[in-house]
Amino acid sequence: MTIPTREQEPSYSVPESMRAAVLFGPQDMRVVDKPVPEPGFGEVLVKVAMCGTCGTDLKIYDGHFPQTPPYGEFTPGHEWTGTVVALGESVDEFALGDRVCIEAHHGCGRCDNCLVGKYTACLNYGKREKGHRATGMTTNGGFAEYVVHHVSSLYKLPDNVSHKDAVLITTAGTGLYGLDAAGGYIAGQDVAVFGPGPVGLMTVEACEQLGANQVILVGTRESRLQVGRKLGADHTVNVRERDPVEAILELTGGAGVDLAIECSGASNAPQQCVEVTKRGGKILVVAFYKEPVTLDLSAVVRSDITLYTTRGEGGNNVKRAVSLAAQGRLHGEGLVTHEYPLEDITEAFRVMREREGDPLKIVLVP
Amino acid sequence: MTIPTREQEPSYSVPESMRAAVLFGPQDMRVVDKPVPEPGFGEVLVKVAMCGTCGTDLKIYDGHFPQTPPYGEFTPGHEWTGTVVALGESVDEFALGDRVCIEAHHGCGRCDNCLVGKYTACLNYGKREKGHRATGMTTNGGFAEYVVHHVSSLYKLPDNVSHKDAVLITTAGTGLYGLDAAGGYIAGQDVAVFGPGPVGLMTVEACEQLGANQVILVGTRESRLQVGRKLGADHTVNVRERDPVEAILELTGGAGVDLAIECSGASNAPQQCVEVTKRGGKILVVAFYKEPVTLDLSAVVRSDITLYTTRGEGGNNVKRAVSLAAQGRLHGEGLVTHEYPLEDITEAFRVMREREGDPLKIVLVP
Amino acid sequence: MTIPTREQEPSYSVPESMRAAVLFGPQDMRVVDKPVPEPGFGEVLVKVAMCGTCGTDLKIYDGHFPQTPPYGEFTPGHEWTGTVVALGESVDEFALGDRVCIEAHHGCGRCDNCLVGKYTACLNYGKREKGHRATGMTTNGGFAEYVVHHVSSLYKLPDNVSHKDAVLITTAGTGLYGLDAAGGYIAGQDVAVFGPGPVGLMTVEACEQLGANQVILVGTRESRLQVGRKLGADHTVNVRERDPVEAILELTGGAGVDLAIECSGASNAPQQCVEVTKRGGKILVVAFYKEPVTLDLSAVVRSDITLYTTRGEGGNNVKRAVSLAAQGRLHGEGLVTHEYPLEDITEAFRVMREREGDPLKIVLVP
Amino acid sequence: MTIPTREQEPSYSVPESMRAAVLFGPQDMRVVDKPVPEPGFGEVLVKVAMCGTCGTDLKIYDGHFPQTPPYGEFTPGHEWTGTVVALGESVDEFALGDRVCIEAHHGCGRCDNCLVGKYTACLNYGKREKGHRATGMTTNGGFAEYVVHHVSSLYKLPDNVSHKDAVLITTAGTGLYGLDAAGGYIAGQDVAVFGPGPVGLMTVEACEQLGANQVILVGTRESRLQVGRKLGADHTVNVRERDPVEAILELTGGAGVDLAIECSGASNAPQQCVEVTKRGGKILVVAFYKEPVTLDLSAVVRSDITLYTTRGEGGNNVKRAVSLAAQGRLHGEGLVTHEYPLEDITEAFRVMREREGDPLKIVLVP
Repeated sequence: MTIPTREQEPSYSVPESMRAAVLFGPQDMRVVDKPVPEPGFGEVLVKVAMCGTCGTDLKIYDGHFPQTPPYGEFTPGHEWTGTVVALGESVDEFALGDRVCIEAHHGCGRCDNCLVGKYTACLNYGKREKGHRATGMTTNGGFAEYVVHHVSSLYKLPDNVSHKDAVLITTAGTGLYGLDAAGGYIAGQDVAVFGPGPVGLMTVEACEQLGANQVILVGTRESRLQVGRKLGADHTVNVRERDPVEAILELTGGAGVDLAIECSGASNAPQQCVEVTKRGGKILVVAFYKEPVTLDLSAVVRSDITLYTTRGEGGNNVKRAVSLAAQGRLHGEGLVTHEYPLEDITEAFRVMREREGDPLKIVLVP
Repeated sequence: MTIPTREQEPSYSVPESMRAAVLFGPQDMRVVDKPVPEPGFGEVLVKVAMCGTCGTDLKIYDGHFPQTPPYGEFTPGHEWTGTVVALGESVDEFALGDRVCIEAHHGCGRCDNCLVGKYTACLNYGKREKGHRATGMTTNGGFAEYVVHHVSSLYKLPDNVSHKDAVLITTAGTGLYGLDAAGGYIAGQDVAVFGPGPVGLMTVEACEQLGANQVILVGTRESRLQVGRKLGADHTVNVRERDPVEAILELTGGAGVDLAIECSGASNAPQQCVEVTKRGGKILVVAFYKEPVTLDLSAVVRSDITLYTTRGEGGNNVKRAVSLAAQGRLHGEGLVTHEYPLEDITEAFRVMREREGDPLKIVLVP
Repeated sequence: MTIPTREQEPSYSVPESMRAAVLFGPQDMRVVDKPVPEPGFGEVLVKVAMCGTCGTDLKIYDGHFPQTPPYGEFTPGHEWTGTVVALGESVDEFALGDRVCIEAHHGCGRCDNCLVGKYTACLNYGKREKGHRATGMTTNGGFAEYVVHHVSSLYKLPDNVSHKDAVLITTAGTGLYGLDAAGGYIAGQDVAVFGPGPVGLMTVEACEQLGANQVILVGTRESRLQVGRKLGADHTVNVRERDPVEAILELTGGAGVDLAIECSGASNAPQQCVEVTKRGGKILVVAFYKEPVTLDLSAVVRSDITLYTTRGEGGNNVKRAVSLAAQGRLHGEGLVTHEYPLEDITEAFRVMREREGDPLKIVLVP
Repeated sequence: MTIPTREQEPSYSVPESMRAAVLFGPQDMRVVDKPVPEPGFGEVLVKVAMCGTCGTDLKIYDGHFPQTPPYGEFTPGHEWTGTVVALGESVDEFALGDRVCIEAHHGCGRCDNCLVGKYTACLNYGKREKGHRATGMTTNGGFAEYVVHHVSSLYKLPDNVSHKDAVLITTAGTGLYGLDAAGGYIAGQDVAVFGPGPVGLMTVEACEQLGANQVILVGTRESRLQVGRKLGADHTVNVRERDPVEAILELTGGAGVDLAIECSGASNAPQQCVEVTKRGGKILVVAFYKEPVTLDLSAVVRSDITLYTTRGEGGNNVKRAVSLAAQGRLHGEGLVTHEYPLEDITEAFRVMREREGDPLKIVLVP
């Protein structure tokens, strides 16, 4: 076996200072000059190409996210992609010039959960001093020109995957990690996906690509359901027009789906999942809720249903997503509906919050 | 290898008629004469030694259980034990005179769920004509002198296991099946069990015997917590005296338990399970609730918790329970607090419902 | 929810006698008149459209398969497809006129293994009197005009799946059951498949369809490797031209594949699987060997490799295969290279054994 | 909840130099003066109480172990226990004075395998520069007065566990990690353990403690089988007196065991495991072999057997072992048959190799 020699690597001149969004207080985000960070042991410096925004960013912006760095220092942004421009000590997994995408979490590597691979549930979550980092959440992230990241959560992009695709690869990783937790082998099974946001839509495409029998997408906005059909949903149910429980039971001959995936965060959706899931089936929840959720738990028990949850995009699932994208089987780019310069981050957040122009995925370009 | 020859088998004269409890309508149970049933292909006839009662029996008695045989015909009772007195066609797994205990469910053997071993969630549940049977629930059960059962759900008792123990082996099977679904490997892990009823108590003993680190039992009645301590609970929490969430977090250094098992059916217990379960941990629910349950589902997701449920006692788990009992590691007999002749079944049900004399497990002897 | 009413069912006149191949002794197969069998409880009668042949049939033909029915009675054939023409008691899963395909095994439904879903490893394997049946192996099969089968192992064909496709669906089920045992979630992973026979080729297509990153097919005949490339193999290695270990390590950057699937039955292939499998990876063996196999077992341990095996096509995997075929993602028809009338079965077996004309899948049409 | 305040911690004066065994070449081990190492980020310095020896140490001693540090520098020893005397940066998991035991491996924390919890199969195995370390194998170990270790693989000893017990906790961790990989839920199942060395014997005790039905131990030396019976083996088979296959099939009514665990390293033992394992059962191999192993792989496939392997003692299993020891359920101390001062390491190795006085576990005390 011969190991191919690497071509001449490009070299990058990295400035000392950069533009970066910094949260100075609740709803007070400013783009300021900041020193470019330096990659430490096992880390790389990435020049950000773009960074997606998601609902969690709004919580962060509003000051409702625990364990962030202090106001006046903290740069959010956890769906970024870019190019490697400097390598920290010990890094040979990447070369300068590599285009990369990410997963957000790097575990402490020393708690019971990290040791068994559950680092998105790291018991030292948020403790930077012990090695944990969640980019854009508990450490500085990608609403900036440069960002430092650990190699454990960095993935090389193939040439045929664009940076817009790459933003959505992180999103797809969320769905795939959930599928992984729920067994991952859905070929020939019926799947219902609740919530055609970016996670739900990427999950629809993933399920279709992994051989699901019927993929049924449930949502409230026709425009999004249409995107879902393009990405592979066999059926869509607009809950403004039809009771999703009735519709899904009809589509499955009364038996229900093998797997219901809750990505909507609507507080009545979990109960609908219970009602549409087959005896012995599975429910996967990858959403968050504004309030406690009420469920017919007896029905869950009576039907021998298992309820899986995952947070983040662990377990090599971003690597899987990159492969699927490279195979032409995940199409994130089409979900990017809005693009803003980083300097306009406050406006971008306003548009996201007010859903002005029905944004699906907004990206910020530094 | 030599196969031991069977000793001379006893022979039994089986009468044509027997005494059996029959449900004639809601809360109208009468002990009447009934023909002794005949075992068909793959079935045996068992002379009942005794039959336990449980909460599900009250629901049946009140007419709140679906898919039972018609009033005037139906004999409930699903925790029975006895002696094999006749063999149906093809049965060589048992010999006349074998003392046996049971699990309740026999699947149809032809639906998607039975084919993958999830027969307690049989898609033909209740369809006797397709082969499904749940003794004392969807077919006639053990509140009678004789009962027919399929060999798939019958287990031979070792000599050192009494019939009282055997009643509780079915109960223990419920807990073990749940543990099985949740992974089964709890050695060295912290476990909290909510609800010191028969299922909870047998589960406490099972967890202790399988090497759990701390077993913490949560309940409301001191008498039952005391039984729990005898069976191996390392700690008990009386919720009338102390907040169980606070107590369990303290006992686990703030981290929470690896596994919380909900056997109480109290509608606030599932949320307490969420609060005491470690990041990345598991919740197992083997109880039923009078009403919908409200949960902080976001917390479940944020902590990467999986929620398992099981119904019944499938997956060879009664076989496991028999082995543990034979090893002297499951002690059911001590839980039998009341014993009534079958003719007094109405009185026994009254005592159970009114909790007169704090009954733990009431058995009926035909 | 409305349940669609079934259209007018066709009715079939079933004759009393049929033509069927019967094994009268080693290598003595004759096509004779035989009574048409009657479907019992839970069974259907199928008019055979065609029946594939496979290596196991040669072992049966030569008299090297245990537990078959007696010479002079036994009709082999376990890869058949056809049309339902009569229903046994309790069957409403199928209607007359349904086109169907099969899996071979029906478990006893009462042993420890059947109870946990491992019925292809039924502890009563071959005991017809206890309910086990393996069509064409331990009970009469499909080298006949009619055959009886249990509904548990019968699958309705969609209109867009041909009978030739259907023969290979059983074959695909073998690969999928193996994948299922090995975890089933191969999206983004590198897979090597050894042996481009029908099982290997259908497995190549399945892996490609389930999102594998690289699918590498290893074989000796260029014609078959070419079929493999058509079905989705990203790379093929002809072992007559190149050492497969070297080739696969090169294709995987030295790390090896996540999953090596041994379908060749060549006695050196298992060791090659060990050498090409990544640390922590998996080997799946779904082949049989003429002689004991020699392996560097220390290397398996040192690399934390798990070795999975499966027999048959259990666990709902034929159902999955039918779905994939209906989705246009499994293409069996192209593998059928030879077609003979049932009367020429001896000639067909000769051609298969002598590999005359490089047969891939030979079918017999009654 | 209140967090208990730590009592006044002891302080330790650590010298600059220590006595340590150093491998200068094949079979050239010398005890020399060496600088005491300093704990880095996430590491602690442990004063060694004693260090066990095992078969791997002989391979290392003979120069047959890859990826060790250079001759003249390398200190072996991977079964050590001692007392924490200094803490590296970020360590608050331990306090000075804590008595500890260990697992050997610390993964790189950045490869695909570490990310999913399979760090004993780290893809950067042996690459110290990337963070991987295997104490006494790829980094300096415990045949010394002091040793540095990462907190991820260090476990606090309860007061009732002696240092001799602690040496064997690492050994028990090997068996438990294997059980974990193989499912871990063995309650009520029949288990055969081949090879009554330290790993086999600790595994016998673990299986007994986790509720196995029958534990059958197979070996060649009566003295060791006797130890096995003390630790909980229900039956022992001396292969010098009886064919173990015949004996085990007889003990299991002809069906075979649910799980066969190969700890002997004898090259005929894997085939014996195949022959004694039940259809659908499991084989776990945690041994290494001097030569390739020959197996009836067809029988493995025909019986749907899965073959698990593990290396090391990952996945929180040493934590589990510590808990079992604290519960009084693992008894390592009795296996320590010989104790030597560190200065006599060459003599100790001679005794181990020549099996002089039938040593079970030899420990070296610095």
